Amino acid sequence: MRIALDAMGGDYGPEELTRGALLAVKQTGLQITLVGNQPVLQAHLDSMYSGASGESDIQIVHASEVVEMGESPVDAIRKKKDSSVMVAFDLVRQGQADAAVSAGNSGATMAAAVRKLGRMEHVSRPGIASIFPTLKKPVVMMDVGANVDCRPQHLFQFAVMASAFSHVFDIERPRIGLLSIGEEVGKGNLLVKETYTRLAASSLNFVGNVEGRDVFQGNVDVIVCDGFVGNICLKLSEGLASAAMQMVKDEIMKSTAAKIGYFLARPAFRAFARRVDYAEYGGAPLLGVNGIGIICHGKSSAEAIKNAILEAVKMVDKKVNQRIVLGLAANALDEETMD
Amino acid sequence: MRIALDAMGGDYGPEELTRGALLAVKQTGLQITLVGNQPVLQAHLDSMYSGASGESDIQIVHASEVVEMGESPVDAIRKKKDSSVMVAFDLVRQGQADAAVSAGNSGATMAAAVRKLGRMEHVSRPGIASIFPTLKKPVVMMDVGANVDCRPQHLFQFAVMASAFSHVFDIERPRIGLLSIGEEVGKGNLLVKETYTRLAASSLNFVGNVEGRDVFQGNVDVIVCDGFVGNICLKLSEGLASAAMQMVKDEIMKSTAAKIGYFLARPAFRAFARRVDYAEYGGAPLLGVNGIGIICHGKSSAEAIKNAILEAVKMVDKKVNQRIVLGLAANALDEETMD
Repeated sequence: MRIALDAMGGDYGPEELTRGALLAVKQTGLQITLVGNQPVLQAHLDSMYSGASGESDIQIVHASEVVEMGESPVDAIRKKKDSSVMVAFDLVRQGQADAAVSAGNSGATMAAAVRKLGRMEHVSRPGIASIFPTLKKPVVMMDVGANVDCRPQHLFQFAVMASAFSHVFDIERPRIGLLSIGEEVGKGNLLVKETYTRLAASSLNFVGNVEGRDVFQGNVDVIVCDGFVGNICLKLSEGLASAAMQMVKDEIMKSTAAKIGYFLARPAFRAFARRVDYAEYGGAPLLGVNGIGIICHGKSSAEAIKNAILEAVKMVDKKVNQRIVLGLAANALDEETMD
Repeated sequence: MRIALDAMGGDYGPEELTRGALLAVKQTGLQITLVGNQPVLQAHLDSMYSGASGESDIQIVHASEVVEMGESPVDAIRKKKDSSVMVAFDLVRQGQADAAVSAGNSGATMAAAVRKLGRMEHVSRPGIASIFPTLKKPVVMMDVGANVDCRPQHLFQFAVMASAFSHVFDIERPRIGLLSIGEEVGKGNLLVKETYTRLAASSLNFVGNVEGRDVFQGNVDVIVCDGFVGNICLKLSEGLASAAMQMVKDEIMKSTAAKIGYFLARPAFRAFARRVDYAEYGGAPLLGVNGIGIICHGKSSAEAIKNAILEAVKMVDKKVNQRIVLGLAANALDEETMD
């Protein structure tokens, strides 16, 4: 298997991304194509080369441009046809890579994937799923930002796509919850009420509405929402975690006993931080395009990049896209029969 | 000043609520009317009576019915006209109380307030504001659940109402943020984009879009959103805080050093927990009705009830409702002039 890594995107630059690629090849029998500025990437690769097995499985494909973080995604992919993210997805399109991973401009990554790979049959709107840690298994939320104004059929398709993705966590028949403001049928806005009816009538394993407080309980495997709500949930969670950490530190700094206590308990806090760290879970998969793409956080460390690459491998192994095709085709048949 | 307390609602029952009322009268020169089952409340009051000054400032008004937590709000207030929450708001309507506080069924509290007090002039949709702790001053988010499908003018009015409420935190010219999925103009769903234009054209202190991660930073004083999104934010925050606490405890229990460390640092953690505890801030004010009402969390302790009562007092003192009337009247004039 070969994964294309956009080696120019991300807040920490090509060196950190190259290191992530090396971690991934060392851990598995994988081949990786670094896409970006050839001389820069070759220099990083040479400086890290230790002769360990697997390192020769990394190749470089040159791309002359880079999409910057602040650029308009639509403009960027139109103007920068030779950008690292466009070239990475082109490798997937040509069958020269099985998946592409990028920690660059998220909107541009999404746009490049749709442009190069195209939407899957029966998919109205490709979207982005995100993995949330919970008290039990991780939960997959979709959409988290690609589609801000949705109709019920979009949310329905997110349910099918996110369920297929759940197989990377070895979940065979994922429980699907619809994000709303009360558990009872009939609670929620118009979009949620109509989506509820559609999900309840389907053969999916729909368990009903879930509330904001249920997200971290782990009692469902998939949570469906529109991209506006999902993106706010994602960023609110990140913001709350970081503000809480700051508040705890402020309080601890006020007393010597607390400082000593914190020192003793630090391994536990580190274990907790790892448990809630997005990097542990890889990146956010792009679902609904004819190929596999993973969007990583801009602040992804080498470790996070490695996990995203392994996640892409798992998506290939678990045949996530084939499952989406089948799921949506079955639903299309159901709908035709109902007519 | 006299505050009516629905002494039957809430998960901990009349005894805890009565205790909260006593805490409030002891702290201030306030008068409180407990509304509910007279013999039950009298018995609780007698058992707590210590002869301390102020305790005689509590009176009881009988109400023969109670709205249960699971009941449909609309049905409940139609059928149970003599319920404690209806009687409490009737006291406000008659001028026998300056505000009502309830920890019972939130929907029924909202419905009782609207039914008994009526909507303010120029208010299309009364709503519920909620107070979020941040790294700096608390932030007021509105709406958090009363209005799930909104139009731009509703969000605009929430901005005016929540700004008026901010005066209870001694904020003179609150900075208003619009909850969206990117800070730039043009980011967000249709509702947000239209609301942005309206807020930017007004004389309000509108600072632009804010993202989920900004909620806890304290760089704005008011965050405006529809009730669907706001309710999900509120419950997601509660759920994340409680899940994180559980995860930290799980990790600490795995090592003796961590347990000792946690014991030493416990005062710091308690201080943190107080800082993020909704109960410290009182309850969620109902804004847009002709009178003052506060909705408390069902799990409100006596301390939380006391804080909600003090919050109601502050709303009266700071003339929050008069500010809302003026703010909306000024906006109505602006709109007429524009026509």
